[in-house]
Amino acid sequence: MPPDLTNYIRDIPDFPKPGILFKDITPLLGDPAALKAAVQALAAPYRQASLTAVAAVESRGFIFASAVACELDCGFIPLRKPDKLPAATTSATYELEYGTDTIEVHTDAIRPGDRVAIIDDLVATGGTAVAAVDLVKRLGGELVGCSFLIDLAFLGGAARLAPCPVHTVITYNGD
Amino acid sequence: MPPDLTNYIRDIPDFPKPGILFKDITPLLGDPAALKAAVQALAAPYRQASLTAVAAVESRGFIFASAVACELDCGFIPLRKPDKLPAATTSATYELEYGTDTIEVHTDAIRPGDRVAIIDDLVATGGTAVAAVDLVKRLGGELVGCSFLIDLAFLGGAARLAPCPVHTVITYNGD
Repeated sequence: MPPDLTNYIRDIPDFPKPGILFKDITPLLGDPAALKAAVQALAAPYRQASLTAVAAVESRGFIFASAVACELDCGFIPLRKPDKLPAATTSATYELEYGTDTIEVHTDAIRPGDRVAIIDDLVATGGTAVAAVDLVKRLGGELVGCSFLIDLAFLGGAARLAPCPVHTVITYNGD
Repeated sequence: MPPDLTNYIRDIPDFPKPGILFKDITPLLGDPAALKAAVQALAAPYRQASLTAVAAVESRGFIFASAVACELDCGFIPLRKPDKLPAATTSATYELEYGTDTIEVHTDAIRPGDRVAIIDDLVATGGTAVAAVDLVKRLGGELVGCSFLIDLAFLGGAARLAPCPVHTVITYNGD
């Protein structure tokens, strides 16, 4: 029986600032069985999907996505902060609570018709994921779905990704 | 026969600044067979090593390390930039060409006697790797080795890690 992954996620109060209850996945990452179970749960929706690649946003998205790519025998596409990718890029800017952030992808990383899923550890308000979806589609990729280990459902991020199929492993509904 | 990984690494001149020839691994990441071969080559030295965990520095180190952890059935320890890890941390500061940089690890991520290997995509001058080694040892971890996909041997980084065993998959000796 796979481990109950919620047992490997710890709450850190007031991080990164007062009033925020941070979901810390490092105990899960440190446990071999839990790490593997998380990777398999993220990969599960795409076993028959013939993905070309999974895409993920740095840094925490990279942790699960490359392992999922190996599990599914597909490629891995890094979506990075500005000025990190060395070749020609296209970028998407999204809103934060204060200000904006930008992610980039190599324009040759996705070809029209490529079948791509987005993998991340957590979806909160969904801003990063919406930007990632935008980049994949803009390069002609077929967005097969988004998978998140943790869904902070009370923040509504997954709903913003419709009509993209969204898969989540652990859901928190708030206090 | 495994693919020749050098065919999946492209040279980008003058990145991130004039005179630097950047080794871009994104074509390798995007190819399923090359990605898997790289993960297996990084894991190979530790098949019989009974590792507790692999550790890696964000962001690019995360890409291979989690997949290597799954391959070796061990845990994954993220070494992060300041103020990213939510629980108690210890930190190491290292020299850059201009200025310094700092990485942190959760103090409870490594217990005395844990067997840890450090994984990264590339070793250049070795500053980051030396800091990572320092963190593992300071928490009482036994440093089993360091594995890098790419060694820019003309910069001498691997030699700075002695007596830690260093494994490299692809070596560049300069022009």
